[in-house]
Amino acid sequence: MSCPVLELAQQLIKRPSLSPDDAGCQTLMIEKLEAIGFTVEAMDFNDTRNFWAWRGQGRTLAFAGHTDVVPGGDASQWNNPPFEPALRDGMLYGRGAADMKGSLAAMVVAAERFVAQYPDHCGRLAFLITSDEEASAVNGTVKVVDALMARNERLDYCLVGEPSSTAKLGDVVKNGRRGSLTANLTVRGVQGHVAYPHLADNPVHRALAALSELVSIRWDEGNAFFPPTTMQIANIHAGTGSNNVIPGELAVQFNFRFSTELTDQQIRERVEALMQRHGLDYHINWWLSGQPFLTAEGELVAAVVNAVEHYQEFTPGLETTGGTSDGRFIARMGAQVVELGPVNSTIHKVNECVNAADLQLLSRMYQRIMEQLIA
Amino acid sequence: MSCPVLELAQQLIKRPSLSPDDAGCQTLMIEKLEAIGFTVEAMDFNDTRNFWAWRGQGRTLAFAGHTDVVPGGDASQWNNPPFEPALRDGMLYGRGAADMKGSLAAMVVAAERFVAQYPDHCGRLAFLITSDEEASAVNGTVKVVDALMARNERLDYCLVGEPSSTAKLGDVVKNGRRGSLTANLTVRGVQGHVAYPHLADNPVHRALAALSELVSIRWDEGNAFFPPTTMQIANIHAGTGSNNVIPGELAVQFNFRFSTELTDQQIRERVEALMQRHGLDYHINWWLSGQPFLTAEGELVAAVVNAVEHYQEFTPGLETTGGTSDGRFIARMGAQVVELGPVNSTIHKVNECVNAADLQLLSRMYQRIMEQLIA
Repeated sequence: MSCPVLELAQQLIKRPSLSPDDAGCQTLMIEKLEAIGFTVEAMDFNDTRNFWAWRGQGRTLAFAGHTDVVPGGDASQWNNPPFEPALRDGMLYGRGAADMKGSLAAMVVAAERFVAQYPDHCGRLAFLITSDEEASAVNGTVKVVDALMARNERLDYCLVGEPSSTAKLGDVVKNGRRGSLTANLTVRGVQGHVAYPHLADNPVHRALAALSELVSIRWDEGNAFFPPTTMQIANIHAGTGSNNVIPGELAVQFNFRFSTELTDQQIRERVEALMQRHGLDYHINWWLSGQPFLTAEGELVAAVVNAVEHYQEFTPGLETTGGTSDGRFIARMGAQVVELGPVNSTIHKVNECVNAADLQLLSRMYQRIMEQLIA
Repeated sequence: MSCPVLELAQQLIKRPSLSPDDAGCQTLMIEKLEAIGFTVEAMDFNDTRNFWAWRGQGRTLAFAGHTDVVPGGDASQWNNPPFEPALRDGMLYGRGAADMKGSLAAMVVAAERFVAQYPDHCGRLAFLITSDEEASAVNGTVKVVDALMARNERLDYCLVGEPSSTAKLGDVVKNGRRGSLTANLTVRGVQGHVAYPHLADNPVHRALAALSELVSIRWDEGNAFFPPTTMQIANIHAGTGSNNVIPGELAVQFNFRFSTELTDQQIRERVEALMQRHGLDYHINWWLSGQPFLTAEGELVAAVVNAVEHYQEFTPGLETTGGTSDGRFIARMGAQVVELGPVNSTIHKVNECVNAADLQLLSRMYQRIMEQLIA
């Protein structure tokens, strides 16, 4: 393989970095960054590896990303094992190919080329890399940002490598993100024998009408920057495994991705009112993993749009749809935050893949953004 | 201990016969039956010990039961270890005391007394004993019945020793049982990221309306012999454990206990029609573990009612409620089948026990039933 972006992407995919295990990915990145003059600072917190690296000084453009990936799931459903990357018909397959080891490889190679061309670049180029974005997101970017803010580190622009594109590379750029709120609902009943339902109280039967109503709610209509709020049941579990035992408890986990039309407090109140109206004996643990954020027009948005237009035949759409990203934490530093990465249609799925030519193009786009902002 | 019923019950409890292990219980019973002139035929299938024993000829009354028990669970929660029987305050404690080693002891001692009094009884007295009633019920009564039917064995009356009583010995006699039908439903969707619900298809959301309708159905009103059919969701599972993955599949297991107002075929058709009407991509594996059976009035019911009335101050209720029993297999031989046994309030529980005086009385009732039908 002669292309350095694909070569590095494959080396990263081979390392099974299930959150928060970095599995050596960051060591590989750090070696390459130190080789081109970056100062690298490990910023590990508890079980999570993170690093902050910088080169030069002045106006600061940071590339942000994560080395961790979601599990491969049933490996037998993959054409190739999830952690054995394979190139087939122009696509690179493997867990993390699109989310987001391909982007990491594109960033590092873009930095190598940029530094070779501008060894004395006038601004500061930085990397903020974590390994817990896909899981709890507790010991990663949020704590690194806290530490950087505590010492008044400068951060003007942040480009996050999350897979923002939908059909073609660069068709969508994210200049904000919805909020994310998770509910861990427990509905209590009374366990018993299925032959004696009058002596038991089936929490599944009790909850079905409430859940059915919950999934049919239209929460808002979105606004100029945000799509409508959505809610999805991610997990539901009840039962002992036996076919003759009425379960005593039902556990349901559901997640909201919400626009700036709603606050997390409004969502909580509406859900709790619904549960109470249905007379459920329930408890909810709420977990707010991100407030919505927005980066309006500015130098970073302009540079990103320019880079996409330069290499593609179109102007990217600015959107705030999709998942949360660590961008929500970085926005707290006052930085402009934009996300640009590959097509996301296979992320978190079996046979996750990315177009190999797109990765090479993405690296060129990243390089052009560096050139516009800190050359 | 001077009472032979309690003595034998304790010897049986001491043998830890966890399904399908008989642990020597049947050897003990066989010794006693051979001593009073029974011909005993071992009918073992795979890992399961069973026997069929008979004495005399003509109209046949069989006593049916199982030597296996459910596990004791946490022995530290018992007052005495589950397989070390203890008599305390008039109660006999131990795993199987009520379900159903007490009944087995009562049957054998009743046979000893009956044979002593009527050595030339005019009908045939038989025993059908298995050791897998509590577990799979695959290699026990069902296969013994197949073998007996294959050689055209006669069986007119069958008394099953299952603990039918609820508050007082003999207050409830079972003259039938509901059917049991289990559905293993899989609803298929498309897995994806919760932030991109338009790229996924949440099978939980799709199924909720159908399940909500399913649990609200009133299947029938029951009839003179059967309570209304009931349905219970015993297990429901979807999700990867992650809060940001839309599950690709939902698994739901539900069980029907159905009356003779419905056939299993009618239930299947109604459920499948409902799933189709809701447009679900689904599959159901059905498992019929028992057809309903009913022994209406007849000589056996009359003899059992007479025996209870003779020893108690009340007339027993004839019911078809509760779980399944091996009676469902024996009914296929065309026999009248009735269940009469001790109070069932502690079965399958810690500190399972039976009233010692009840066991002695039960043995007398069994003897009186023999006298009425085959003396």
